[in-house]
Amino acid sequence: MQNEILDKIMKPKAIAVIGASTKPKTIGSEIMQRLRDYKFNGKIYPVNPKGGIIEGFQAYTSIKEVPGEVDLAVIVVNAKFVLDTIDQCHEKGIKGICIITAGFKETGKEGAELEKQLLNKVKEYGMKCVGPNCLGVLNTNPDVMMDATFAESLPVRGDIGFVSQSGALGGGILNILKDLNIGFAQFVSIGNQADINAETMLEYWENDDDIKQILLYMESIQNPQNFRKLASRITKKKPILALKSGRSAAGASAASSHTGSLAGADKAAAALLKQSGVIREFSLKNLFANAKAFSNCPIPKGNRVAIITNSGGPGIMATDAICESGMQMAKITDETKEKLRSFLPSAASVKNPIDMIASAPIEHYIQTLETVIADENVDMIMVIYLPFLGLKDIDVAHALIDIKAKNPQKPIVGVFMTTNDFFGKIANMDVNMPFYMYAEEAAEALLRLDEQRQWMNKPAGKIPCYDVDREKAASIIKKSIDEGRDQLTTLESIDVLQAYGIRACKYGLATDEEQVVTLGNSIGYPVVMKMTSKTTSHKTDVGGVVVNIRSEEQLRNEYRALLKRLEDKGLLDGLEGVIIQEMVKGSREMVCGIATDPQYGPMMMFGLGGVFVEVMKDVNFRIAPLTDEDAMDMITSVKAYKLLQGARGTTPAQIGQIQETLLRLSQLVSDFKFIDELDINPLLISEKTGEGIAVDGRIKVRLKEAQETLKGACSCAC
Amino acid sequence: MQNEILDKIMKPKAIAVIGASTKPKTIGSEIMQRLRDYKFNGKIYPVNPKGGIIEGFQAYTSIKEVPGEVDLAVIVVNAKFVLDTIDQCHEKGIKGICIITAGFKETGKEGAELEKQLLNKVKEYGMKCVGPNCLGVLNTNPDVMMDATFAESLPVRGDIGFVSQSGALGGGILNILKDLNIGFAQFVSIGNQADINAETMLEYWENDDDIKQILLYMESIQNPQNFRKLASRITKKKPILALKSGRSAAGASAASSHTGSLAGADKAAAALLKQSGVIREFSLKNLFANAKAFSNCPIPKGNRVAIITNSGGPGIMATDAICESGMQMAKITDETKEKLRSFLPSAASVKNPIDMIASAPIEHYIQTLETVIADENVDMIMVIYLPFLGLKDIDVAHALIDIKAKNPQKPIVGVFMTTNDFFGKIANMDVNMPFYMYAEEAAEALLRLDEQRQWMNKPAGKIPCYDVDREKAASIIKKSIDEGRDQLTTLESIDVLQAYGIRACKYGLATDEEQVVTLGNSIGYPVVMKMTSKTTSHKTDVGGVVVNIRSEEQLRNEYRALLKRLEDKGLLDGLEGVIIQEMVKGSREMVCGIATDPQYGPMMMFGLGGVFVEVMKDVNFRIAPLTDEDAMDMITSVKAYKLLQGARGTTPAQIGQIQETLLRLSQLVSDFKFIDELDINPLLISEKTGEGIAVDGRIKVRLKEAQETLKGACSCAC
Repeated sequence: MQNEILDKIMKPKAIAVIGASTKPKTIGSEIMQRLRDYKFNGKIYPVNPKGGIIEGFQAYTSIKEVPGEVDLAVIVVNAKFVLDTIDQCHEKGIKGICIITAGFKETGKEGAELEKQLLNKVKEYGMKCVGPNCLGVLNTNPDVMMDATFAESLPVRGDIGFVSQSGALGGGILNILKDLNIGFAQFVSIGNQADINAETMLEYWENDDDIKQILLYMESIQNPQNFRKLASRITKKKPILALKSGRSAAGASAASSHTGSLAGADKAAAALLKQSGVIREFSLKNLFANAKAFSNCPIPKGNRVAIITNSGGPGIMATDAICESGMQMAKITDETKEKLRSFLPSAASVKNPIDMIASAPIEHYIQTLETVIADENVDMIMVIYLPFLGLKDIDVAHALIDIKAKNPQKPIVGVFMTTNDFFGKIANMDVNMPFYMYAEEAAEALLRLDEQRQWMNKPAGKIPCYDVDREKAASIIKKSIDEGRDQLTTLESIDVLQAYGIRACKYGLATDEEQVVTLGNSIGYPVVMKMTSKTTSHKTDVGGVVVNIRSEEQLRNEYRALLKRLEDKGLLDGLEGVIIQEMVKGSREMVCGIATDPQYGPMMMFGLGGVFVEVMKDVNFRIAPLTDEDAMDMITSVKAYKLLQGARGTTPAQIGQIQETLLRLSQLVSDFKFIDELDINPLLISEKTGEGIAVDGRIKVRLKEAQETLKGACSCAC
Repeated sequence: MQNEILDKIMKPKAIAVIGASTKPKTIGSEIMQRLRDYKFNGKIYPVNPKGGIIEGFQAYTSIKEVPGEVDLAVIVVNAKFVLDTIDQCHEKGIKGICIITAGFKETGKEGAELEKQLLNKVKEYGMKCVGPNCLGVLNTNPDVMMDATFAESLPVRGDIGFVSQSGALGGGILNILKDLNIGFAQFVSIGNQADINAETMLEYWENDDDIKQILLYMESIQNPQNFRKLASRITKKKPILALKSGRSAAGASAASSHTGSLAGADKAAAALLKQSGVIREFSLKNLFANAKAFSNCPIPKGNRVAIITNSGGPGIMATDAICESGMQMAKITDETKEKLRSFLPSAASVKNPIDMIASAPIEHYIQTLETVIADENVDMIMVIYLPFLGLKDIDVAHALIDIKAKNPQKPIVGVFMTTNDFFGKIANMDVNMPFYMYAEEAAEALLRLDEQRQWMNKPAGKIPCYDVDREKAASIIKKSIDEGRDQLTTLESIDVLQAYGIRACKYGLATDEEQVVTLGNSIGYPVVMKMTSKTTSHKTDVGGVVVNIRSEEQLRNEYRALLKRLEDKGLLDGLEGVIIQEMVKGSREMVCGIATDPQYGPMMMFGLGGVFVEVMKDVNFRIAPLTDEDAMDMITSVKAYKLLQGARGTTPAQIGQIQETLLRLSQLVSDFKFIDELDINPLLISEKTGEGIAVDGRIKVRLKEAQETLKGACSCAC
């Protein structure tokens, strides 16, 4: 049903332009020109109170007077007339709306109110709406041929679906894409995304064979969990490349005043895109350069790259770029080397990079490339050309294109260090491989192809459901909130973790010296003594943690000393007691926990703990709930993973058990959505068993939300 | 004297082209065409055994028959005739030579021998020589007008001095520079750099006012210490931008087979460029983009950037790029804001980024830019343009150029997200500011300007000379090498460090249980016991280090246990004894040391130590000898610097003392050049005093070299 209405917008048979104009350099005139010039395949009805002829089409004084059925109304009237216009569209039975007009949420409070009314009408009437404050929509399919934008350039046909949040930027993008000869199938400028947003388009394009890759320019993600659900499914079929701006705090603040949208913290956005398999780009330049590769290359079978060049210097630079990207330089087989030696001059190098030397004629390009394509050790090929006496760039390009046509199975990219003139010619040709000016651009494009390969080969993650004691966890939390505490004590925190099956060290609570000693003796020395208090959350600051207590006598003394310190600082009142804890021996302190992003919800963290957390920032984030794959990625992609594997003679950590710890934590915060913060620091890696053991825990909830939730009965949410 | 001969090459009054040809598409024909087409300002003498007329000039059958004086001989004859040709040039009294001909070192052993003979002749005759295996030389000064290359494009006049090591790449570069409208003053393709290399040109260009910035493409640095001396002096006057390829191991191996030059380890090259103030680029694209900024912008007064835009999206992306680069978003003054508000529409944002909104006419660009230039909080300005109904890119560009002409004091860069056509036009105009297509490129260019500002403001470093006991250090090392040991014992290593005034912890050597106990008692508990052995270098692997020994009894037991362990492993023989050492309390383990690069010499390292050295790689390298500035940079630019400053309640480290430690180490390896490796791991930061204390040391020498050096008498080398 939704897709049917979206079809009316993206594949209309009749378009009304409400606010069409004869006045030059107005949007109402430009859009009419584009529809005409791009030869829209259906009916065009300009609507203007004055009637007359606009760009050669009969204009109507009102949408209601348009004789035929209308699929899509493109609205460019002044903002104050938009609501009325929507009413009229409804009366006319129109379901597809694209509102170009600005002056809504982006201008402030009044505009936001107007936009809200607009959205209410759209919903009430069962319409779908692009905009407001946008550049319009495009579809290059020969059956449609719709350019309902006011961008300068007419589009090039291709296989990209493009969503842009910024209107003016969209216009710039269309110009540049035209220059770069990057074609697309459909383009939607979603503007303020009152109704239709990136997620709408993802879903609409999921099974559209016209669209082989999806490009997104976003300043915010509207519904992160929905975006994740859609994107992680679609990226298994076709690549999604996204440029998400507003990364810096200043940029995010500019984004928020610009579009009125709340810019989510970039860490959360980065995590979300990563776990959804979306390829994130950090500049439009890279977005386009890499899209060019996806339009012209198959997904490779591996990451082994061969470089063919007629100049040593660029060959070296290309090798640097390939190696630094983490891909591999292909090991050319002896058979290939022999074949290459049979026709290349003796000064040439048949090792990868294959340097045919400057004098290489076009025949050497052809023979070398054909030979290298056939090499089973080669997954991708970069061919470098530098001008040399009489060897014409365009001739070499034609030769490569011919070979590519006969050998479509492996990605081939060209690096042509030549004039802009060449790229101008290429832009007007029907090419089947991407050409770049610099080796670094080509290497990055190959890397993206390889990243997509890796993602597609990776199993879809599963969110496991462990058998946990949810009731117990709930009752512990309930006790705390009943007492008005949003911060659980250490003891409570550890109890909650244990209820969810997370390995924490053995402990007990003692409230007087005799209990302290009894506990110490039963757990066995050495032990750790930690104060637990309702008023002091950072225990180390008051000397509230004493480690490596080796005997009953020492335990007694340390307990007395602690009481004295607290008394001196006036902190004795809040003291609940001390926890006597099994002392886990290990030198590797990890950290894991949860922070809540106002828009993205609970975000999990894992990495190197202890004093290094803030200094090294060797941590990873993922949005909860985690899949098994997410959890494993979090663990294996911190630098400290090498330490976990057992560097320098330490016991290898139980990676699977640490993964389970993260997954159980994820289940915990999914069950209790009011958990605002949770820290396990350290998650100590036991030198004895390699287990990750929660040695300290801290849980904080959003009090009101928790109170409301825990009013009712508890039921397992898995 | 050298510069006089270089003048003959770079500013000749008469050029002979030996091997000039009438045959099209040969180098001998192309060079003649370039000299003619670019209108060389002196005499041109083609030399060809057949005589006749070549490209309109009278040809001579031999260089000796040329009637007038000749400053520069450009040699393109076959490699086997090159030596004879040089003899003839000598007879003719020619001092400047440029050998285009290939077939020398780059082709293998025979070629290398030929090149050696060539160099001998050049030296014997008192000539200077560019090449062989190169593209030629260029000088665009109106008094010279020399294009003695065979590149496709004629050059554009500008202020850049460019040295390229790769010949074919040089041709590509010249094409691209022409397209980008990047002009240069002089260009030298040094090829195999048999005689003239990058350093020669640096020195030659140092005081040449025609040259405002120097660009280098290098695959190797021939004499690192000389390069450093020149570059660190010149970069205080004019920027040097370098692209050094062969960074990856595979790339370096390609570089070495390509040019026959030994590619120095990239870590060493990176350190050298950094401490010489050279701006390192990692792709030609960035090299060119940033050179454009230096050609068109003054060095800014600070790093506060204002962004002016007509579209929100690119404004956000620009803000992201500025913030991520470490520069600051300028805080626009209230006065400026008020002024902007007086003419910008209410929907515009007068906060930085200043968003004039899409409807901004050209007058808003002019008024806004003029207002922002006058703001004292603004050091640099980025102006963004996106196409919008009728506002022409080229008109906006002209307006900006006019304003820049009147306000040359602050860098202004344009970001024009428009068609290639615009950039084609710009390339043919006389511009005074750089234009980029993407905000990220512009931000990087501004960052480079700012880096140059910082470098120029930074005091020139000094290499201090401390009063050390060189004799003692020498005698300790001598003892070791006299016994044929290239590896000093821990004890010896620490003694050497102490002789150089490096703070190491108190210790003594004991060889039996009673000595052990006596020492322990005199140093005071807790102590550390470490074995010292001539056969076992990694002590921890055999449990040879025991820490935190708190009593005489414990010391006795640990000593006995150690002997037992060594006996069991059959390692007791090499044992010299155990070191009983003051136990320094501190949790922050740093590392410093020295590794020797075969080409760059001793390279110093500093960073986070302990188990994190290899995992975190939070270390810095610099080539010795260190200046005080180098040492301070090494310390302040590791991430762990935050730990040193006293993060999480620790004692702030004595940064000056750590700096001195590095400088004394540097002096040590400068005095004893045969030291091959030296490690202080850990350099423990004392929790008590904040000092960096060498707790363990390891020194390894190159035995033969050490033996030869220490044969003679020792004398202080400072």
